[in-house]
This record gives sequence, structure tokens and C-alpha cells, in this order.
Amino acid sequence: MAMHDVTIEKTILTLLDEKKYQTLKDILVTMEPSDIVAVFEELKEEKVPLLFRLLPKETAAEVFAELEPDWQELLIKGFSDTELREVVNELYVDDAADLVDEMPANVVKRILAQAAPELRKEINEILRYPENSAGSVMTTEYVSLRPEMTISDAIVRIRRTGVDKETIYTCYVTEARKLIGVVSVKDMLLAQDDQTPVSQIMDENVIYVNTMTDQEEVAQMFSKYNFLALPVVDNGGRMVGIVTFDDAMDIIEEETTEDIEKMAGMLPSEKTYLRSSALDLFRNRIPWLALLMVSATFTGMIITGFENALAAQVVLTAFIPMLMDTGGNSGSQASVTVIRALSLGELEFSDVPKVIWKEIQTSVLCGVALATLCFAKIMLFDRMVLGNTDITLTVAFTVCFTMAVTVLMAKLVGCTLPMIAKKLGFDPAVMASPFITTIVDALSLLVYFGIARAVLF
Amino acid sequence: MAMHDVTIEKTILTLLDEKKYQTLKDILVTMEPSDIVAVFEELKEEKVPLLFRLLPKETAAEVFAELEPDWQELLIKGFSDTELREVVNELYVDDAADLVDEMPANVVKRILAQAAPELRKEINEILRYPENSAGSVMTTEYVSLRPEMTISDAIVRIRRTGVDKETIYTCYVTEARKLIGVVSVKDMLLAQDDQTPVSQIMDENVIYVNTMTDQEEVAQMFSKYNFLALPVVDNGGRMVGIVTFDDAMDIIEEETTEDIEKMAGMLPSEKTYLRSSALDLFRNRIPWLALLMVSATFTGMIITGFENALAAQVVLTAFIPMLMDTGGNSGSQASVTVIRALSLGELEFSDVPKVIWKEIQTSVLCGVALATLCFAKIMLFDRMVLGNTDITLTVAFTVCFTMAVTVLMAKLVGCTLPMIAKKLGFDPAVMASPFITTIVDALSLLVYFGIARAVLF
Repeated sequence: MAMHDVTIEKTILTLLDEKKYQTLKDILVTMEPSDIVAVFEELKEEKVPLLFRLLPKETAAEVFAELEPDWQELLIKGFSDTELREVVNELYVDDAADLVDEMPANVVKRILAQAAPELRKEINEILRYPENSAGSVMTTEYVSLRPEMTISDAIVRIRRTGVDKETIYTCYVTEARKLIGVVSVKDMLLAQDDQTPVSQIMDENVIYVNTMTDQEEVAQMFSKYNFLALPVVDNGGRMVGIVTFDDAMDIIEEETTEDIEKMAGMLPSEKTYLRSSALDLFRNRIPWLALLMVSATFTGMIITGFENALAAQVVLTAFIPMLMDTGGNSGSQASVTVIRALSLGELEFSDVPKVIWKEIQTSVLCGVALATLCFAKIMLFDRMVLGNTDITLTVAFTVCFTMAVTVLMAKLVGCTLPMIAKKLGFDPAVMASPFITTIVDALSLLVYFGIARAVLF
Repeated sequence: MAMHDVTIEKTILTLLDEKKYQTLKDILVTMEPSDIVAVFEELKEEKVPLLFRLLPKETAAEVFAELEPDWQELLIKGFSDTELREVVNELYVDDAADLVDEMPANVVKRILAQAAPELRKEINEILRYPENSAGSVMTTEYVSLRPEMTISDAIVRIRRTGVDKETIYTCYVTEARKLIGVVSVKDMLLAQDDQTPVSQIMDENVIYVNTMTDQEEVAQMFSKYNFLALPVVDNGGRMVGIVTFDDAMDIIEEETTEDIEKMAGMLPSEKTYLRSSALDLFRNRIPWLALLMVSATFTGMIITGFENALAAQVVLTAFIPMLMDTGGNSGSQASVTVIRALSLGELEFSDVPKVIWKEIQTSVLCGVALATLCFAKIMLFDRMVLGNTDITLTVAFTVCFTMAVTVLMAKLVGCTLPMIAKKLGFDPAVMASPFITTIVDALSLLVYFGIARAVLF
């Protein structure tokens, strides 16, 4: 199957309209669950239950798990108890827990009534943990082995229990529920003698996370160690579940989107862009816009304070946007670089002196280069080409000197604020461009008018 | 082993100084390669070869593959031919290809001289493909099966050849080198009868990528389908390699960092922040700073054009920063949201009308809210508390009306430019905040002075 099938979505929608159900079944059986989910996203509400009933048994639960909550709710409301039981008990435990977490109370009641007792217990187990903790994203379906088992015993066990497990390739060796080792199917398959006990080939240096570990840290460990799964252990060292690499990829994507949204002065969104209503977007965007607008009162007050000076030298006003934008851009370059390095774990608070020194050097280089370029631009273009005779050498000097100082201040504010935020336990991403721009605006205007007053009046 | 071992790095550095080599060996054997790499990053140059020689044989190549290029070069220069041969031939093919790609010519010559002929051929194969293509990031070490093999034959084959493969869990079924199916070790282990031919249990609907597919697209497919590995196929449909999930995670991290850097008006960096010199940072940051500074000439010209009006109503100047910043913030909210949605594959060019409509609604909501808040702030705080009597009702109206129009323009420019860039084949991330701020500044000033002229003079 080709990798991009925008047209297959159209074909399916057409076949659905034409009620060619057998043909649809034949097509659906060849498709990956994720591609089927993409078709559901294009579907009108009334067609959703219809298409779902045409899915092959094996993929139905997998597709269901990936659907958006509103489609899930719609489907459940249309399910008979038997249908609901079939779907729910086919779900992986972590997906079932997500579902219970997202549905309204009356739907949850029906789901739990149809869930097998064991599944119900495990769903409740997972929902006990706080949001975004390893416990809340783990699944309780993993292969556990005892240390005295031989490799051949272990393989028999995997064959017997593996079909329900989210991964069989990494198996966990436990003794009295304590995690004591990890062994991969690769190690077992490649071992010379299948009568070797598991305890002899297992790796005892197990990397694990605690149930309360933040999901972002869990995801970082995946990109560091390249594991297929990480075991989750409670405070007593007892193994309670695993997080798998595909969940880690989802977490990384979600956390990165959240970081990017915060950096652009927005609250993190719950839904994808196309599924967000204008009201959702408004709610995410207005708080920072309003806060930053009000805080621009300071810049306004600074300008009002120098109103008489400005009235005498109106030419100074023309350079305010350039100084402010360059300050904002310089600051956000530094802050965004530092925020990204923090979230990739490349920087720690102890690196502050190194970071500040690096940014000072960089801002001197940038400041001198920009000031020189700016001086040339002002004298050659603004003064000579445009013939603006208000621009004296002193004015040009004032602007260019302010430019260099602004770049320095912007880069220092930009690199330090995120690190301080992190140290104080806030999210550094909030200290990105918009916030820093407001501070740098005020600082650069103070410098500008300060120098202007000293030199020009 | 605990998950965070900042102190173990210190212990190792101390033991190295004290020449306690046997203790070091005992510690190193319990450590994960990635954690050992973290120790190398803290090391002084002269200690690098020493610590490397203490590594257990099994992990040495894995650690070597993850080191920064400067440490790799240093080590190779110190290696005897025998040592070099051992390390190079232990590397996975894709890591060996990366190494050859990054080392200077004289080092490459030595590496290729020590590489086994088969490895040399495969390195050259991978290096033929353009940078960032699937061919350039794939590995040629995968398990291939023939369709007529039984499951038990297949397992024998995996046992015999698996030790060198990057993953054994997904096996590819080929016929005359053409990829015809995929089968997982899980399917084979869980099958009832191990005399079943592979062709009966394999999945014939294989999702694959072409050697020339861009790595970003490859990575997106991993987060969509949750595969352990994706097969790479040439234009003739012949299987040439696989990309594994851990490489996909690295690609996602790298591409996201690049996007974030571009959004903040920087050229993408080659090195991590702490390894970049001030000169590296300067080179990445100055082009956009300089370009944006020069383009602020337009805003300057607009202000100069209205100089006389401004001189008569200096009070207008005080609101320029607030209008500009709010415009910039509104625009970057829209552009960053759209850029992220584009890079996650949630948006396509055909969605332009939907996006524009959504942003119009959102900006009307934001614009009205901000204008109202702004009006209250100006009349209650600026005029009454601060007692600025220059602020008349007409001035307040001019500012607030401009505010609403600016938000609308900013959001429209912000959402459309990235989509147009994508359509034209440019990277949408370049159309982020700094670029849009410059455009929105000019537009908002034109509106501001336009309204002021109509209303105030």
C-alpha cells in the first residue's frame, strides 16, 4: 500500500454513500488502523456508526482507541451492551483508562458495567495516579517472568499470555512483585541453550521510573536510552506497569506542542487546530494578549515622560519601532534557544554562568554588527537618499548606541529569565518572546531617551 | 540503578584522577551506554582515550557511536589499526555511515581501510543518498525471510543472523529482492503451528517509504503508525534497508529544534547550545536580525511621513509600542499555531478557507475584548489616575479602533503566510513571529495614522 492515500478517503466516502458495504469491508481489511481513523475524521456524524460496524473485528478496538472523544461518545451511545462489551474488553488497559477519563459520568457508568472485573480493577488502578505522571500513562499489561524459569519456560509463558500484552519483546523478571531484572526476547532467542535460567541472562541494572515521575521526564528517558518500554515501579520497588515507546512518542509530541504554544504566548490547547472552535482559540489566546497589552502601559508611561523631548526632536520617534523590534528579536532568539536546551535536558541551572558569558560574547558581536549596519543605513539611506536633514550625526549615534545596548540587555534578559523560571519551579516556556519583548521594550526606551537627553538636549 | 546519576559522573571523574582503573571497570560494566556518553561529555581531552579503553568490549562501539564528532576524531587518531578495526566493524551500518560522513578526509581514509569489505560497500550505499532522505538515515542490517520458509526455519534464521541486526522483531519477506510482506516475531511466537509457512502469516499490506522520502515524513509515519521499523524500498520496489523507531525519535527531536529555531528567527544550529561558540551563535542569529532591522526602515518611513501630525499630537506616540506589541503577539499566536499544525500534518493547503474563517472569528473576539479593555484602561488609568488630559475620547477611540483592526490583520497575515510558504515549497517555520511582526508593524501604523488623520485633524 502506498504511503499517502488522500484519495482512498474519498473512495470510502463515496462507497459509503452508494451503500457498497461488501466492497468497503474488502478495502477496510487491508488498511492500517491509523489510516482508518483519518477517514473517520472526514465523516459526517450519521455515518460514523455505520462505518464502524463494517470494520473487521481485529481492528475495531484499535481504531476505536484512536478516535477523538466526541466520536467515541457517539459510538458508545449507539452501541448495544454486547457491542460495548466486545470493544471495551479488546482495548489495552491504558487506552481503556484514557476513555474512562474522558467520557461523561453516565457513559463511564455503562463502560465500567461492561468491563471485565480484572480490567475494571486495572482501570481504577491507573486512574488513581495524578495527571501526567508515569502511573497515569502506563499500561498494566506486560510480560513478567520469575528468575528461576528457563528460557524455554519463559517462551511458553509468552506464547500463552502474550496475545494481550502491549509488548512481549521486553520481559520483566520479578520476585515477590519486586522488579529484579529485565530480559529481551532477542536475548532469549539468541541464547545458546534454552535450558538456561532467566536469572542468568537477565540484566540486573534495570532503568525504571517511579509511578509519580513526570511524563515529560519519562519521554526524555526514551529518547536517551532507545528502549522499547520502561518499567514503572511504586515507592516500595514493586513493579506496577510499563510505558511503551509509542506512548513516549505521543507524549513528546504533546509536550513539544505545549512548549511551542506557551512560547508564543498561548495557553496549551486540548484539541487539534481544526477541531478547536473560535471560542477555544479565543480562550487560549486572550489571557496573554490582555496581560501583555496592559503591561505595555509602562512603555507608554516612559514615552509620556519624555513627551516634551520628543516634541522637540520628532525624528527620534521614527526609530522607536526598529529599536523595539530588534530588541524583541534578539531577546527571543536567546530565550527560545535556552528554553529548547532546557526541555531537551542539555542545560541545567548550574550552567547559568556559562550561558551568560556565551550570550554576552554573542551580543557584543551582534550589537556591534547591527550598530554599524544601522549607522550606515541611517546616514546613507535615511539622510542622503531620503534627504531627511533632521537626522544629524548625533541622532545617528544615539540610535546606534541604543541599538547595541538593547541587544545586550535583550540577550541577557532572554537567557536568564527561563533558567530562573525553571529553578523556581515554573515552566521556562512561559518566559519566551512575548513576555521578554515587553520587558526589553521598556528597557530599550529608557536607554534611548536617557542617551538622547544626555547627548541632544 | 537509579535514573538520575549526576553524582556517578563525579565519582567516575575522581576515580579516573586516582587511577583506580579496576573499580572503574566494575562500575562501567553496570552502566547504560547513554549514561557513559554523558560522562565523556564532562571529560578533559587527555582523559578521553583512557576512559574509552576501560569500557567493556560490548558497549565500546555503542558508546563510540553516540559521542560528539570531536571526541570520535580524537579517539580515532589515538587508535592503533587493530583498535580502529574492532570499533568500526562493531558499529551498526548507519552509525558507521554517519561517522564517515562527519570525519575529515584523512580520518575517513583510515576508517574505510579498516572496515570489512561488506561494511565498506554498505557505507558507500548509504552515503549515495541525499542528506535527510530515508536512504541516508536507514540501516542495511535487517532480517529478511523468504515466503516459503516455515516459522521454525525463520526462527533458525533469526538465531543465526540476528546478533548483527538492529532489530529482529520485525522481519521482511522478500522475493527476488522485492518486498512482499512483513511478519513480526510476536506473530511467529504466538502462531499455533511452527510448520506454517511465513507467507501464510505475513501481512501483505506493507507500509514502506522510498529511499528518497524526506526524513521528516518518515518520522511522521512513525508517530502515526507506532511501528518499530519501516522498510525502505528503491524505485524498483526492491527492499534496501530499514529505519528504526529510535532513529525516528532522533529525527523528530532534530526537526523540532530546527523548526523552533527558525520560528525565533535563527538559522538552524549544527551543535548543542553548550557546544556552540559565541561565533557559531552570532552566525546563526545575525542574518535575520540584520534583515529585520533593515526592513524596519519602512515603519520608520511611515512615522516620518506623519511627523507633522505626530508633532501636533505627541500623545499618539505613547501608544505606538502597545499597538505594535499587541499586533506582533496576535500575529505570532496565529502563525505559530498554524506552523505547528502543518509540521504535525494536521493541516493541508486545502484547509486555507477553514483556517482563515476560524482566524477571522477568533480575531473579532480577541479584537473586541482587547479594544474594550484598552478603552477602559486608557480612560480610567491613563486619563483619570495619571491625569493625562491630552487623552481625549477621540484619541482613546482612535487607539482602540486601531487595536481591533491590528489584531484582525495580524491574525490573517499570521495564518496565511505559513500556508502560502508551504505551498510554494518554502519552510513555513520561517514565516513565524519576527517576520510577521515586521509586516504587522507597518500595517498597524498605517491604520493608526490613517484613522488619526481622519478623526483628529
